[in-house]
Amino acid sequence: MESQILDCAIIGGGPAGLTAGLYTTRGGLSNVVMFEKGMPGGQITQSSEIENYPGVTGEITGMDLMIPWPEQCQKFGLKHEMVEVTRISHKENGNFIIHRGDGKTQEAYSVIVCTGSTPRRAGFNGEDKFFGRGVSTCATCDGFFYKGKEVAVLGGGDTALEEALYLAKICTKVYLIHRRDTFRASPNTVERVKSTQNIELVLNSCPDEVYGDAMGVTGVRVIDNDGKSREINVPGIFTFVGNNVNNQVLMQEDGTSLCSLNSAGEVIVDLSMRTSVPGLFAAGDIRIEAPKQVVCAAGDGAVAALKAISYVDEKLSHK
Amino acid sequence: MESQILDCAIIGGGPAGLTAGLYTTRGGLSNVVMFEKGMPGGQITQSSEIENYPGVTGEITGMDLMIPWPEQCQKFGLKHEMVEVTRISHKENGNFIIHRGDGKTQEAYSVIVCTGSTPRRAGFNGEDKFFGRGVSTCATCDGFFYKGKEVAVLGGGDTALEEALYLAKICTKVYLIHRRDTFRASPNTVERVKSTQNIELVLNSCPDEVYGDAMGVTGVRVIDNDGKSREINVPGIFTFVGNNVNNQVLMQEDGTSLCSLNSAGEVIVDLSMRTSVPGLFAAGDIRIEAPKQVVCAAGDGAVAALKAISYVDEKLSHK
Repeated sequence: MESQILDCAIIGGGPAGLTAGLYTTRGGLSNVVMFEKGMPGGQITQSSEIENYPGVTGEITGMDLMIPWPEQCQKFGLKHEMVEVTRISHKENGNFIIHRGDGKTQEAYSVIVCTGSTPRRAGFNGEDKFFGRGVSTCATCDGFFYKGKEVAVLGGGDTALEEALYLAKICTKVYLIHRRDTFRASPNTVERVKSTQNIELVLNSCPDEVYGDAMGVTGVRVIDNDGKSREINVPGIFTFVGNNVNNQVLMQEDGTSLCSLNSAGEVIVDLSMRTSVPGLFAAGDIRIEAPKQVVCAAGDGAVAALKAISYVDEKLSHK
Repeated sequence: MESQILDCAIIGGGPAGLTAGLYTTRGGLSNVVMFEKGMPGGQITQSSEIENYPGVTGEITGMDLMIPWPEQCQKFGLKHEMVEVTRISHKENGNFIIHRGDGKTQEAYSVIVCTGSTPRRAGFNGEDKFFGRGVSTCATCDGFFYKGKEVAVLGGGDTALEEALYLAKICTKVYLIHRRDTFRASPNTVERVKSTQNIELVLNSCPDEVYGDAMGVTGVRVIDNDGKSREINVPGIFTFVGNNVNNQVLMQEDGTSLCSLNSAGEVIVDLSMRTSVPGLFAAGDIRIEAPKQVVCAAGDGAVAALKAISYVDEKLSHK
């Protein structure tokens, strides 16, 4: 155990974690570490184009968007440890222990968890090759790039159907590919999908391969339950086959979670990003009702940081 | 009444309203109007320097920060009406009526209220002259610019004392000026202020004048209840003498509010910026627990817009 107790430990280095680092250090916490085993920037760095981060204009990639962040956010003294965090545990005195992948531990008065979530891959051929160049997991982010074009959506749950409805207002046609002939989504959403004229249901079918050229996707080949294949010529396919919430760091040795989660494994927070445990905050895509947008994750990080500052200040005043 | 019903009416053109405009139109709503009687940009355009909006670096003014926003946010078809909105009312069919200052009305399926809040002026000499050049109403925003320096804080409520505690971690000394010898803040906060070594209480005193030079504030002259004057030589004074929540547009002719407010007049929202009225959303500084930061207001605007899109889509599917 390193001897000095951290004012705040930030777990994850995407938009939420970086902004939390900016606001905690600029707000006067002197000993703040952001734990991110890779390069900071987060999931958005895989996006080939982003045009909806307010104030940053022009045709830029997600990577370009995030380039200035680490320097700006570390300018006020945020430290970055390139190490994995395996677990966060709680001491009887209310402090937290950060368990690192290298076997070391560090103690912290407060923690902001910003480990995000990861959309599951569907597993068809070409999915990884064309990810970010026609294969997307976010209609809000990328739908507009297909304005006036046809797209495919893969999935049968609430998210898939809601994203299909979102895309149907932007695109001329949406092919909704689903491996069964019934949907897991809420009946109301299913009804709206069925009554939307420019959504074509492609049921009992799975994508076999996404194909394309140097410019990106040009189509998807699906195979139905009878083995018949069909080519759908679209420049974009949106896959919604589930989401892995990166909440492993909250899991305790007895299998319980450090703080309250919903049934999807997302951290339950209030408007100030407080979790059920005092001193533990969550920000960005790991929390309930996350809109999964850079500007929203950054806003979460800012407010979590301001609340962490107050928490640490009050805690230390009672020592 | 103009004939076409708006998909969404956005009231206010600061960071929340502009981002709501970006996300509603980019998400496929075709008939969206942002009502802002002045130039878009909001309160932040009065700030002389901003360094905590993630991704935008360098020494820039609040005005510079906001320059690219209107074009970016209007690129997808957002319309801007330079007219005041006096009131929003609710029709029996669930639609809203936007009452304009010019006597016209417009109907909308959904409304996002982003009219913000306005810190009250304390009323001392030099306050307006030096606003943004040493006189501030936001410690989170401007405190860091006084790192290692002494500052004054004016006020005796919870906000004033919490901001004094925030500044005490950044600045070498904080003079807390208050016109009484007791505080309205919570006892716990008062106790923390009294036990903070670098906060000096300047009680039973009011600021008479803030003075300075071309570079900004150099000091504040206070007068105590006995008429004795004292000069406190500081480069910054933070005033927290109350906040006007700009909720007038929600007030109905019978004196009630269109949606639920807290005792401070702030709009009660959930994590998705829904108010107590379906189809009515609030974003930015007008809502409860607003951190009053540009990135947070923008995040609010984005999520409110995404929820407004779903709301309008569902509403129209039932017609």
